[in-house]
Amino acid sequence: MAADGGGEPDHLAGERATAQFDVDGMKVAWAGSRHAVEVADRMARLVASDPVFRKDTRTMLSRKELFKDTLKKAAHAWKRIVELRLTEEEANLLRLYVDQPGYVDLHWGMFVPAIKGQGTEEQQKKWLPMAYKFQIIGCYAQTELGHGSNVQGLETTATFDPSTDEFVMHSPTLTSSKWWPGGLGKASTHAVVYARLITEGKDYGIHGFIVQLRSLDDHSPLPGVTLGDIGGKFGSGAYNSMDNGVLRFDHVRIPRDQMLMRLSQVTREGKYVHSDVPKQLLYGTMVYVRQTIVADASKALSRAVCIAVRYSAIRKQFGSQDGGPETQVLNYKTQQSRLFPLLASAYAYRFVGQWLKWLYTDVNQKLEAKDYSTLPEAHACTAGLKSVTTSATADAIEECRKLCGGHGYLNSSGLPELFAVYVPACTYEGDNVVLLLQVARFLMKTVSQVAAGKQPVGTIAYMGNIQHLMQCKSAVNTAEDWLNPAAIKEVFEARALRMAVNCAQNISKAPSQEEGFSELSPDLLEAAVAHVQLIIVTKFIEKLQEDIPGPGVKEQLQKLCSIYALHLLHKHLGDFLSTGCVTARQGALANELLGKLYAQVRPNAVALVDAFDYTDHYLGSVLGRYDGDVYPALYEEAWKDPLNETVVPDGYQEHLRPLLKQQLKLSRL
Amino acid sequence: MAADGGGEPDHLAGERATAQFDVDGMKVAWAGSRHAVEVADRMARLVASDPVFRKDTRTMLSRKELFKDTLKKAAHAWKRIVELRLTEEEANLLRLYVDQPGYVDLHWGMFVPAIKGQGTEEQQKKWLPMAYKFQIIGCYAQTELGHGSNVQGLETTATFDPSTDEFVMHSPTLTSSKWWPGGLGKASTHAVVYARLITEGKDYGIHGFIVQLRSLDDHSPLPGVTLGDIGGKFGSGAYNSMDNGVLRFDHVRIPRDQMLMRLSQVTREGKYVHSDVPKQLLYGTMVYVRQTIVADASKALSRAVCIAVRYSAIRKQFGSQDGGPETQVLNYKTQQSRLFPLLASAYAYRFVGQWLKWLYTDVNQKLEAKDYSTLPEAHACTAGLKSVTTSATADAIEECRKLCGGHGYLNSSGLPELFAVYVPACTYEGDNVVLLLQVARFLMKTVSQVAAGKQPVGTIAYMGNIQHLMQCKSAVNTAEDWLNPAAIKEVFEARALRMAVNCAQNISKAPSQEEGFSELSPDLLEAAVAHVQLIIVTKFIEKLQEDIPGPGVKEQLQKLCSIYALHLLHKHLGDFLSTGCVTARQGALANELLGKLYAQVRPNAVALVDAFDYTDHYLGSVLGRYDGDVYPALYEEAWKDPLNETVVPDGYQEHLRPLLKQQLKLSRL
Repeated sequence: MAADGGGEPDHLAGERATAQFDVDGMKVAWAGSRHAVEVADRMARLVASDPVFRKDTRTMLSRKELFKDTLKKAAHAWKRIVELRLTEEEANLLRLYVDQPGYVDLHWGMFVPAIKGQGTEEQQKKWLPMAYKFQIIGCYAQTELGHGSNVQGLETTATFDPSTDEFVMHSPTLTSSKWWPGGLGKASTHAVVYARLITEGKDYGIHGFIVQLRSLDDHSPLPGVTLGDIGGKFGSGAYNSMDNGVLRFDHVRIPRDQMLMRLSQVTREGKYVHSDVPKQLLYGTMVYVRQTIVADASKALSRAVCIAVRYSAIRKQFGSQDGGPETQVLNYKTQQSRLFPLLASAYAYRFVGQWLKWLYTDVNQKLEAKDYSTLPEAHACTAGLKSVTTSATADAIEECRKLCGGHGYLNSSGLPELFAVYVPACTYEGDNVVLLLQVARFLMKTVSQVAAGKQPVGTIAYMGNIQHLMQCKSAVNTAEDWLNPAAIKEVFEARALRMAVNCAQNISKAPSQEEGFSELSPDLLEAAVAHVQLIIVTKFIEKLQEDIPGPGVKEQLQKLCSIYALHLLHKHLGDFLSTGCVTARQGALANELLGKLYAQVRPNAVALVDAFDYTDHYLGSVLGRYDGDVYPALYEEAWKDPLNETVVPDGYQEHLRPLLKQQLKLSRL
Repeated sequence: MAADGGGEPDHLAGERATAQFDVDGMKVAWAGSRHAVEVADRMARLVASDPVFRKDTRTMLSRKELFKDTLKKAAHAWKRIVELRLTEEEANLLRLYVDQPGYVDLHWGMFVPAIKGQGTEEQQKKWLPMAYKFQIIGCYAQTELGHGSNVQGLETTATFDPSTDEFVMHSPTLTSSKWWPGGLGKASTHAVVYARLITEGKDYGIHGFIVQLRSLDDHSPLPGVTLGDIGGKFGSGAYNSMDNGVLRFDHVRIPRDQMLMRLSQVTREGKYVHSDVPKQLLYGTMVYVRQTIVADASKALSRAVCIAVRYSAIRKQFGSQDGGPETQVLNYKTQQSRLFPLLASAYAYRFVGQWLKWLYTDVNQKLEAKDYSTLPEAHACTAGLKSVTTSATADAIEECRKLCGGHGYLNSSGLPELFAVYVPACTYEGDNVVLLLQVARFLMKTVSQVAAGKQPVGTIAYMGNIQHLMQCKSAVNTAEDWLNPAAIKEVFEARALRMAVNCAQNISKAPSQEEGFSELSPDLLEAAVAHVQLIIVTKFIEKLQEDIPGPGVKEQLQKLCSIYALHLLHKHLGDFLSTGCVTARQGALANELLGKLYAQVRPNAVALVDAFDYTDHYLGSVLGRYDGDVYPALYEEAWKDPLNETVVPDGYQEHLRPLLKQQLKLSRL
């Protein structure tokens, strides 16, 4: 897709002319199919051409204006979805390109899936049709002021009262206030609320309940319900369009049948009983949600990289001794060595995200066949990928901002808002450190199972090759030897396995397993990261074993795959050297090859970000404009700032003039 | 200093009771002297107790409100400074604690010093008294829309017209618009403008000129002058209080004597002549400015660390199997291994900043004695320290935010604004990558001088020990051996030297020196970082050789020094292993010792951040409150958000109700 406009000169035409591959073919590889390119393109243009979806002054809006704008966009998006009878795929893409967090995200992404996953058929029949038509708006109220990652620590209570056949929802302490749920503060009429189920005097732990919060007549909170927004968040615009909320219950009663009863029930008499539905079914949802988070990481990262690459080709600096034209910043090796690994990472995350889609289908098929054997591996794998890709993406967006120099600090660059809106991904749906520790626990378990002769499966299968991997030494002898995927895979496998085995051995020296795990946890995080990086590298390599049509497309991806792997090898060289799978000389050869690969990617860089197929509307960046006409646009954007409404600023008469005129009223003490 | 209030229970009292050192003694070590503690404390309280300086709702203000608030605070601060007859030291501290970027920063920090440093005595006599009394407000207009780091690329022209004895200031292109100068957009009446001096048809390059921009009667821009704000920047509040500006000249005339003429002049006839004042005198200013930036890094970092440490002691999570109290987050090894190195870094930067103050005095003395021999070393050293400390601080603030979990994302945590307001330090006063390349150039020069038998001085003196450092191997044999400062210093010196020598050797293989330098620049950046980290480690070690009064104070600092050095060793293990100065086993021993040191710092952590002596006002964080009473405060802050002014949000009638009532007006297509 080109810029939204047309007919203007293309300042990046020269860059596009040097591409050594078929950009359309790359678009298909990126999107996953020709169909995916076409639908995404159509939805992106639909949004970009609709004035209601404008977002160029978003960072200048007050909180109230921004929230109202979000309500407007959500209603308008729904109107268009209904009018145009969009498919679910199209509707999801339309919402993606509207690009403004709001209550609909939680309604579709958490409320509806929670009822689908945890509600009985009867409950689904009752609630889903209302939700599908937006007769009710729902959110997902789990975290509390004093309780985040540790769901078992939640304090809200749902006490069964057999005399009325109702649950009494209550917030017994300040820290039990529900806190953070998106859409809760102002928009939602209903919520799935997680609370300690208490019946017959016994606490049965955390369960979900459908609770109406607001009147469907006038939107006022129901009696006993306190609701509000939890206040401003990081950045201008960004996530402030969302009404993350606070909720307190003062003995609010709901009918018994609003407990989500698919896995367990409370009977009319107040007996707590389990159903015969296996708990494992809930894993499918978790894999699904994390899969979308990894896909989102590749989107956010690719947007930032697209902006930084295009502007680095426009921006010139130094390199001229005699007043002639300066050098494009993208030609500097320092810029390339910081930016191209991020470009490679965007592609790497995209492909591992595509693979996770397949994994989700696979997990569901196995669940239906009641085969739970691969669940722990799928769980560890998705947890790890969520953690590693979101952390790296958050850092990478900020690095891209710095790579744009001073102008990256302006809101009109789009990068400050992209960073601020993205970073919560490191915390929600599992804090990244907590998730890595879960991966580490799985690794330790696998190491002991391998020692007991068990053959691991899936992404952890390489650990079965322990004999070889514990003692192999890389045979790489020239820089180009590192182009061999097998050479890469071997050292990444050896590094991951050896770090895990080291940890396991050190833990076994501790007085207890738990104590050892806790003491060694910083090392375990590193071992978990090594394992997850191996997965990403491996899935990139496997992608390249597929048929990838289009002249030159696979060749470019091969270079990016090498860059992705070798920049990690360089960054974590201490791991590779200390576990003895790579020598210092081999490390230096990898670095040497990296420099050559950067030079080869250079003429393709702009085309490689064009392949993401983003509209100027979606990018939302003056620096990342498709046509590269950056400076007039920067100049024009500046004048939109409210501070420029008057030449002499508000406050001059009261606070500047008295100072300049030496007329400050002093009280000599 | 305690919280602003008093009498309330201290939720961190237990933490404070476990401290194994004298907090007052540590305050002195941190501040530099008993006097410094006292003055800072007095000024901080003065600001905190003055309602005009409130900042708790700052992130909720619109751009115009925020700017007006800044004008108000600046005028009020000046009023207080005059009324109380504050010394320069006191006035600077007062402005620091007001903690809101504004035109005064540039007036005092750039405009006045530029005239002092580059103006003749006559010019100083004319302009400085007006500036000292705020009869004029000045800023520093150097960077342009298309030109940042490369000062020689600036396009603005100052053409001498001998017929009127004037310079004609002109912006010949869009990219020549002055862009970014703080205070320029709305507040300044004057600027020091950098432009190409053209006389007798010849371009003499960049020179400074004092230019009046606005009428002193009504603040309107003078004829031919276009002025505006360049628009919103990263974050809410943050740097948006500053009117970074755009300025265009359309043939604006200024008298010849407004060229800053200390180093060179244009005569009445239009002849360009150099004065006999040596250029090197300008270096003093550069060392001074960078010294303040390093000091600011330690302030910003220590604020973030203070917030994260206190909240980590309050926040509890997991660790209870039976519904009992959860574990303080600060007890987790993963939290310690991320947070304590940042705590150690805050102290490390503080002490290297104190040393830079001394260096500034030393440089000035040498300049007066016309001894320019140590200037290149002082320049490289300050450039490198500016780069490394600001980059690490920016990353560390964001890490501290993540260490506070979800609540760190709220503006009320103070961390989003602290990050957004801090990050430009990585770009201004020399982009961090450009500066590191200057350090690298100096390293390469030194390597060749050492090879030629010359003895290097100052922070680069260790390179004279090349024989030993190129082939030494660390003798560390137990974890505790790493407590020996000599053992640390040796490996940091060996690593830095060997990386520099490797680069020099690889450059010498290239067709030309320049080509080699460009190709190797990513490696050169790493070598420069290694050199700068060595400086910081060395200055910390030297600080510990001084007398440091107060029971236990030096012992705590020794632990922090070890943590600072060893976490770097662990993070950059690849450097140490590949240059052969440390073995994998020694690396593992360092890691083992780190774990032990974290455990020893744990009971002192809260007291170590108390020693920064920050008021709750200055910290500006609900999570970092001195009394630790976090949750009621978080709850209370939320209700201040404008979105909570009404229970039913603005926009409900227009955009939510029609949706819920199925009354969206659809146009079926």
